[in-house]
Amino acid sequence: MSELTYTAEKLKGFTREIFRKIGCTDDDAMLATDVLLSADLRGIDSHGIARLSGYIRLWEASRINPTPSIRVVHETPSTAVIDGDSGLGLVVAPKAMELAMSKAATHGSGWVSVRNSNHFGIAGYHAMMALKSDMIGIAMTNASPLVAPTFSLDRLLGTNPIAVAVPAEEEPAFVADMATTTAANGKLEILQRKGMKAPSGWIQDRAGRPSKDPHELKNGGALMPLGSDYDHGSHKGYCLGSVVDILSAVLSGANYGPWVPPFVAFLAPPSDPVGKGIGHFVGAMRIDAFRPADDFKRHMDNWIRRFRSSAPVEGREGVLIPGDPEREMAAYREKHGIPVNPKVIEDLKELGIRFGTDFG
Amino acid sequence: MSELTYTAEKLKGFTREIFRKIGCTDDDAMLATDVLLSADLRGIDSHGIARLSGYIRLWEASRINPTPSIRVVHETPSTAVIDGDSGLGLVVAPKAMELAMSKAATHGSGWVSVRNSNHFGIAGYHAMMALKSDMIGIAMTNASPLVAPTFSLDRLLGTNPIAVAVPAEEEPAFVADMATTTAANGKLEILQRKGMKAPSGWIQDRAGRPSKDPHELKNGGALMPLGSDYDHGSHKGYCLGSVVDILSAVLSGANYGPWVPPFVAFLAPPSDPVGKGIGHFVGAMRIDAFRPADDFKRHMDNWIRRFRSSAPVEGREGVLIPGDPEREMAAYREKHGIPVNPKVIEDLKELGIRFGTDFG
Repeated sequence: MSELTYTAEKLKGFTREIFRKIGCTDDDAMLATDVLLSADLRGIDSHGIARLSGYIRLWEASRINPTPSIRVVHETPSTAVIDGDSGLGLVVAPKAMELAMSKAATHGSGWVSVRNSNHFGIAGYHAMMALKSDMIGIAMTNASPLVAPTFSLDRLLGTNPIAVAVPAEEEPAFVADMATTTAANGKLEILQRKGMKAPSGWIQDRAGRPSKDPHELKNGGALMPLGSDYDHGSHKGYCLGSVVDILSAVLSGANYGPWVPPFVAFLAPPSDPVGKGIGHFVGAMRIDAFRPADDFKRHMDNWIRRFRSSAPVEGREGVLIPGDPEREMAAYREKHGIPVNPKVIEDLKELGIRFGTDFG
Repeated sequence: MSELTYTAEKLKGFTREIFRKIGCTDDDAMLATDVLLSADLRGIDSHGIARLSGYIRLWEASRINPTPSIRVVHETPSTAVIDGDSGLGLVVAPKAMELAMSKAATHGSGWVSVRNSNHFGIAGYHAMMALKSDMIGIAMTNASPLVAPTFSLDRLLGTNPIAVAVPAEEEPAFVADMATTTAANGKLEILQRKGMKAPSGWIQDRAGRPSKDPHELKNGGALMPLGSDYDHGSHKGYCLGSVVDILSAVLSGANYGPWVPPFVAFLAPPSDPVGKGIGHFVGAMRIDAFRPADDFKRHMDNWIRRFRSSAPVEGREGVLIPGDPEREMAAYREKHGIPVNPKVIEDLKELGIRFGTDFG
């Protein structure tokens, strides 16, 4: 079976139906689908529909609640903690972001730390929610421990991504969305499928030695923080991943560090949790809480144009602005469809049979 | 002339006197000295008293105003823009942080973007101001363009550091303070003095090729963003440095990107400024705006202890917590004094002669 291409509309319709079948409300199913498929559209295939069956297995293991009562545990004018009631992160995180934006609308900025949630898809989706309101959006999450801090053998951090979205006027928005590791786990999966080696500096083996084997994590190895090794600043990647963990989980009362429950249903969560579920942290700052939005956006255009017009190194076409590749991919896939890996198609067909919703 | 060691008290007395002589008030001279010498105490020698003569030369070039009228340009309950009136960043940034903390005290969080400032010393100082009030402190600044974004020949970003300080209960605070480059410029200066080569991945030459020459920046070369090259995630370091630039300068109305004025007085600022001076961004979040501070700090202790007790890789004593090395250095130097480079001693003696304040 080979890779086939489907329209976003078709994949969305199917995904929405599956979320409805596990008990999500129509609105939640639509929202979760929009978040999940935004990853496929933007070319981050590891975080999109390829994970649908993973979410369903977590639901089967009673680790995802399809009808959560998401509630504000504590708040001030510009901050809040939300309990996601074991809901889909795909639903909980956008609601947290809405609260952050509403606080920003009235008090200049809003910051929401979230506990008792699950995987929230791509961080960029939540950060980008702020753009339409002329706000800067920020989103981060902790994740299953796959990363060894500098000098550590133990895996204590997730790939803990950070996304920042900044509006411009005529130019498209600046959208950074990055794991705090040298390479995200999705990049290893691509190498595994292609039977290729990883570059040095991405992975260490169980004894802490450099490895190029993309399967190393199954043998007790670990991803390395952004920077790769101490000489190249891996302690900085470790700092960043730690800050994400602290803001997302220690601040909200979620599990942190090695206690973060794994995304895969076949691995049990730690038996000695230090909090509830996984944690996110989202924020929004209203541009005109600092300076007139038009001034700011005009200067962002200038910033973007200056960077884009930089002289490139030999062999490269030019300097990219964060968000360029994903935006271009989304435009292409909206028009030409989303290619889906054969293994994922099998998964989706099985889901379809199980829930009586033909994938086709 | 060899390296000599001086007590922090002596170096502080001299520095305070020099700042007074250029016209700073007693309070400002004391504050600027405290910020500057905190770098020497914490072992970040490139950002401490070694720069005193640099600040004085900027004052001579009328680029530093010793008696600034620092004013709030615009504010909301949780945000503000401050104009530093060309003051010492060493004075402007702590005042911005005080405003952020006062907003956090009343509204949960406070975020201040600063324009028309100068170099602010180490970012960690300002972030750490929040600790005593049980707040999380954040500080960042843009800086003279020395860094080439991924695929760029042009130097468009500074080393743009980020600091985050998080209080704990019994354990010392978590303090991350990091340039968003693979190596800070201060590390190149150390290699230059020792006549050593740089590791690959720190620098590119004027043609964008990898270089190991720590003098390369004088020949049109550039520092590389954290990650070093595209295969190792340098686009992520470029994202981080860009976010620092945008929050510090596009949001406040300071100069950004290649328009940031150089720290050294012998290089003129760009003739086509896009804003005023350099920019900073500081923030504070009250812990108990999220959860009770005692709960949080107890969990931070647990976080810190778990990470510190991780099994280390061979040849390393253990996993460090961000802030450990600097705190240990500060304790040592408070007791045993601060070693000062002979070249810096010459500088200080000259300053002493010029201002009639014997360095001794």
